[in-house]
Amino acid sequence: MNDTTAVTELTAQVAALEAAINLVWVLIAGFLVMFMQAGFALVETGLVRAKNAAHTMGMNFLVYSIGILGYWALGFGLQMGGVGELATLGGDATLDREFTITIAGHAFGLFGMKGFFLPPHTFTSAVAALFLFQMVFMDTTATIPTGALAERWKFASFVIFSFVISGLIYPVYANWVWGGGYLATLGREFGLGHGHVDFAGSSVVHLTGGVAALVAAKIVGPRIGKFGPNGEPRPIPGHNLPMAVLGSFILAFGWFGFNAGSTLAGTDSRISVVAVNTMLASASGAFMGYLYTKYRFGVPDLSMMCNGMLAGLVAITAPCAFVGASTSIVIGVIAGGLVVEATLFVERTLKIDDPVGAIGVHGVNGMFGVLCVGLFADGSYGHGLNGVEGGVRGLFFGDGGQLAASVLGIVANIVWVVPLTAITMTLIGKTIGNRPDEESELFGLDVPELGIPGYAADDGVRDEDLITSEVAVILPSALREG
Amino acid sequence: MNDTTAVTELTAQVAALEAAINLVWVLIAGFLVMFMQAGFALVETGLVRAKNAAHTMGMNFLVYSIGILGYWALGFGLQMGGVGELATLGGDATLDREFTITIAGHAFGLFGMKGFFLPPHTFTSAVAALFLFQMVFMDTTATIPTGALAERWKFASFVIFSFVISGLIYPVYANWVWGGGYLATLGREFGLGHGHVDFAGSSVVHLTGGVAALVAAKIVGPRIGKFGPNGEPRPIPGHNLPMAVLGSFILAFGWFGFNAGSTLAGTDSRISVVAVNTMLASASGAFMGYLYTKYRFGVPDLSMMCNGMLAGLVAITAPCAFVGASTSIVIGVIAGGLVVEATLFVERTLKIDDPVGAIGVHGVNGMFGVLCVGLFADGSYGHGLNGVEGGVRGLFFGDGGQLAASVLGIVANIVWVVPLTAITMTLIGKTIGNRPDEESELFGLDVPELGIPGYAADDGVRDEDLITSEVAVILPSALREG
Amino acid sequence: MNDTTAVTELTAQVAALEAAINLVWVLIAGFLVMFMQAGFALVETGLVRAKNAAHTMGMNFLVYSIGILGYWALGFGLQMGGVGELATLGGDATLDREFTITIAGHAFGLFGMKGFFLPPHTFTSAVAALFLFQMVFMDTTATIPTGALAERWKFASFVIFSFVISGLIYPVYANWVWGGGYLATLGREFGLGHGHVDFAGSSVVHLTGGVAALVAAKIVGPRIGKFGPNGEPRPIPGHNLPMAVLGSFILAFGWFGFNAGSTLAGTDSRISVVAVNTMLASASGAFMGYLYTKYRFGVPDLSMMCNGMLAGLVAITAPCAFVGASTSIVIGVIAGGLVVEATLFVERTLKIDDPVGAIGVHGVNGMFGVLCVGLFADGSYGHGLNGVEGGVRGLFFGDGGQLAASVLGIVANIVWVVPLTAITMTLIGKTIGNRPDEESELFGLDVPELGIPGYAADDGVRDEDLITSEVAVILPSALREG
Repeated sequence: MNDTTAVTELTAQVAALEAAINLVWVLIAGFLVMFMQAGFALVETGLVRAKNAAHTMGMNFLVYSIGILGYWALGFGLQMGGVGELATLGGDATLDREFTITIAGHAFGLFGMKGFFLPPHTFTSAVAALFLFQMVFMDTTATIPTGALAERWKFASFVIFSFVISGLIYPVYANWVWGGGYLATLGREFGLGHGHVDFAGSSVVHLTGGVAALVAAKIVGPRIGKFGPNGEPRPIPGHNLPMAVLGSFILAFGWFGFNAGSTLAGTDSRISVVAVNTMLASASGAFMGYLYTKYRFGVPDLSMMCNGMLAGLVAITAPCAFVGASTSIVIGVIAGGLVVEATLFVERTLKIDDPVGAIGVHGVNGMFGVLCVGLFADGSYGHGLNGVEGGVRGLFFGDGGQLAASVLGIVANIVWVVPLTAITMTLIGKTIGNRPDEESELFGLDVPELGIPGYAADDGVRDEDLITSEVAVILPSALREG
Repeated sequence: MNDTTAVTELTAQVAALEAAINLVWVLIAGFLVMFMQAGFALVETGLVRAKNAAHTMGMNFLVYSIGILGYWALGFGLQMGGVGELATLGGDATLDREFTITIAGHAFGLFGMKGFFLPPHTFTSAVAALFLFQMVFMDTTATIPTGALAERWKFASFVIFSFVISGLIYPVYANWVWGGGYLATLGREFGLGHGHVDFAGSSVVHLTGGVAALVAAKIVGPRIGKFGPNGEPRPIPGHNLPMAVLGSFILAFGWFGFNAGSTLAGTDSRISVVAVNTMLASASGAFMGYLYTKYRFGVPDLSMMCNGMLAGLVAITAPCAFVGASTSIVIGVIAGGLVVEATLFVERTLKIDDPVGAIGVHGVNGMFGVLCVGLFADGSYGHGLNGVEGGVRGLFFGDGGQLAASVLGIVANIVWVVPLTAITMTLIGKTIGNRPDEESELFGLDVPELGIPGYAADDGVRDEDLITSEVAVILPSALREG
Repeated sequence: MNDTTAVTELTAQVAALEAAINLVWVLIAGFLVMFMQAGFALVETGLVRAKNAAHTMGMNFLVYSIGILGYWALGFGLQMGGVGELATLGGDATLDREFTITIAGHAFGLFGMKGFFLPPHTFTSAVAALFLFQMVFMDTTATIPTGALAERWKFASFVIFSFVISGLIYPVYANWVWGGGYLATLGREFGLGHGHVDFAGSSVVHLTGGVAALVAAKIVGPRIGKFGPNGEPRPIPGHNLPMAVLGSFILAFGWFGFNAGSTLAGTDSRISVVAVNTMLASASGAFMGYLYTKYRFGVPDLSMMCNGMLAGLVAITAPCAFVGASTSIVIGVIAGGLVVEATLFVERTLKIDDPVGAIGVHGVNGMFGVLCVGLFADGSYGHGLNGVEGGVRGLFFGDGGQLAASVLGIVANIVWVVPLTAITMTLIGKTIGNRPDEESELFGLDVPELGIPGYAADDGVRDEDLITSEVAVILPSALREG
């Protein structure tokens, strides 16, 4: 074999290896994000009452499957079905051509029109990887309302709403930001920085989920007994704080995939900076949750330490690739305080019942995270993003247009998500209803809605006639009550 | 340096990088599969009574270690000790030569004979990776019977049986399918498609575990009180459904490693298709579990939603690389209904007590998964597999021989696993016994068998004389009872 | 393009791919180690009483954030701020030059002096990856004392101590071993093998944590009621063994990242051998915990099976890259017995109260692990490590100097960690105090220290006047008490 032939072969092999690294990275990152579903399930279930544990777990469990089905049938096509042939997994189209995404065609920059049901001819390796990664992001959004509506959401209503958010509400907004839609063109076309830039989804994922949660929780109303006769909120403590803490750890673990995976390329060396920024903001958010509650209430609040970490994570999600270490710390600190005040505001001023604080964590801090891009992006990354030269710069680094794009991204989100959610929930409410009957709610939703108690006593064997020996039935409660 | 020298060096470097990507991929996938042990532990423990929580957890915990030891000593050699020098990690023997597996020699296509105790000269990087990956698969099998026999299996009997399944029962069958044994040659030698093809283990892992569970559960008999005087089954609800749901999520998470890792190559771009198919079948299985129980019983059953997801995962495990997205959805839907009927059949007709539904999930759906290869494989993948040209095609795509090979794979499994399990369990039963005494079973196995209650009350400090101050002992139960 | 140009380009691309594989590997391994925080939280919380569940979880939760902040501000600079320009992520400086760590400067081989607060000019991709990976190792150390001091550590004292261990105590010792400090030069300068070699941290991480835990637990004193009037220890069983087992699994899962990731290179084919050795030692440790307690106490002890696994993992951590499979099994067996005797010794002879057995697991087995390098290293790996030619060899393979270096590593650890811990804890004790008041301790620390009970009853809705219907308030306890 002469050199030229060998070089040609090597070039192809190197291109294949680059594609392989990117594929492996995107898949593993996607798996980590998928695991966040377990984190949400634990946080939400830990913060509700034991009588609704199976119901809350059940919503978080099934939303994963509903999301997959809704996104497979409709959502993925709406979101990404307009991305043209040059879109690749991890950048350089020349090197990476094997992973070219071949679904194409675009409708007015508002939504895609191809790729529904993942038909065989489009189900390539690159499309499959992209589907998996985008699906788990969408499902994060879909699971947020289950927290805000916990302990009082009719299961059938939840099922229908989850199909709508995964198949329609999320994908259309995601198209605008990540699918080549109009918010991505605000820079190229109108000179507003790089357009609405949201690296890993403070707006696409978290703001969407938070806004939907707010609207849906308002429509469904508070749990029985949450507000007193004069409208004063009453605390309803969660039944299992260790569960909520475990869930928070799982979320922080999966968030590394969420943010660092959003390069869609293991060959993008920025991944480590993104991961560290994510880590730093989570830490300062949690520690601020500790300090802030300690000084505001006299004693630190563990659930707010958890929410502080999550708030820091939500807030760093949009800017994680565009800022440095110290800025990430600052973003987390602000988020950790913001989430406490936002949660109190939702409960005391808006009189909306949000058992797990989802609106403050995802809605308010999702919005804050997007603004952080417009404020703190330092120009060190993002060259070529959305077709604009140079790194992304926020207001503090000289580009007020970037902040304007961020604000437009938020406005567009609210303008789209609020009415869609309101219409959907209202329609469901007028047909099959959004709430279980009052008796079920007081008794706990596990048995009425899912046929099974979250926690059963050891009473399976109660009929002593069944016992073949003379041994008396010793229930373990005897053991425990020792 | 002239070009030729540089090209030679580059060629070596590229080969090393390809090997590195494959090694990293196989290891990380193996770690994810290992984590499934935690998933099994949680699902099984959540579905038993609190009085047996430590015992069920203890079996799931120790089976991991027993499996490692049994597989290190005996199993790996029996399974893979016949694979010749050309076997490599991730394909091309020329490129990947550094990772050539050097254990060799084969005995009659029935079992391997080298590599016992991982002796130093065979403990290369490739062998180590293969050992790790195959070990965690085997351990999945070994942990399945702990679910079906929960709440009544003598711990010492469990220990011995687990050594036998990990060191002998599993590895021999795995040799037939994945170790170059006779089931892998059915295509090459007898023209039956590509021989018995099981991409990630519907038969090797799940059917083996399910069949062993069925036989062992039959021999050990039901829990006291499970069946009424007229043989009617009585429900014994699990004590912690959130635990079971968390376990299901962990299993679905680890299953990405299970299926997509089974390429043994990160450079095989099929990994993303495999992962998405896995995801789709898990979703349609879970959602079918929801719909099917809702319409069959009037109210959806959360534990059957979990089992539906697991059934979908088991069923897609064999065909995951050979089918498209819509077929994966269909496979999951069938699995989600099948598992409900299978579970009822085992309990009501066979009168076998299977507290977690392991037989329906792993046995019945493992069998179904293998048949799916023979029915639905569409020819898009598998060229060269088991030495046969062209992609794998099932009956619906023109190759009835592939279905025949699948059926033979199932028959061989049953013919091998049933008698081995029966003999082993009978021998153990006649010597040290398979069941704890009745008193222990009624009381709960935690303390009698493992010396420790799963859940202890806060009664460590009961002696008020020990208290040095005047403060009364305030038990937290006071707190909780408010 | 002529061949020479193409070869030049290819060479650059191959170098970038090697860097990418290493970066991806280090990050994913680091994420797995981070997840171990959840494992520690679960093990420790499961082994304490329910009345302290939120408090124990809270310490394990916040220590992650405190550690990040302390390490960002001070620790990382002290540890790695002296590593020169040639240090790279994954070896060959020529190939991997893009990931050259550019923080430089070294102070006397005792601690680094650059990189505090991760300033922008040093926050490169390689530094970020190294920061993340080293941070999660440090945090493992920081979380160890929370187990030994559980159920009686004032939260504010814990917060301050955690800043000191993450910002000062750990980093300085880590500099001596991994940051180019004097213990790393014992081979090069004084002919003692390869100097103090600790592949993944038996001494740096576990011995440091174990020694700090011992000293701090001694200073803080035992829980009220732990020792009887005559000093006899009284058992205080953990409230949730399934939680502890889940935590152990998570730790074993994350440990693959801990050990195999410590190559800092996915291109180092030793990673699979490291992973298998880790797996084997964990298995033989756990199984020895089973056998040893079965024969010593008559009944196996589940918590000691867990601690046996963890002991095996701690012990294999230092030698994991330098030994073969059978040696790993032996190391695990010894560790599994050692941890039982060590735990009894701490409790019965030293009269130190260590609720989770952290001193035996991390301190004693950390020391044992380091000695294993000095005894069992077989020369098959480590060429060039710490600037010394040839593989690392222990006493049994001809190099007594290596054992001497290991012993010096242990001595240096104790000489540094004991006084620093003692001084810090004493100063905190004399100012804000190390223990909550007795009343809080008896009542349980959750509400007094963190404002929230770990487990709340469903008593959120108690005021029947709030109920708008005639339905009586049915508490789920009614359900559970059936």
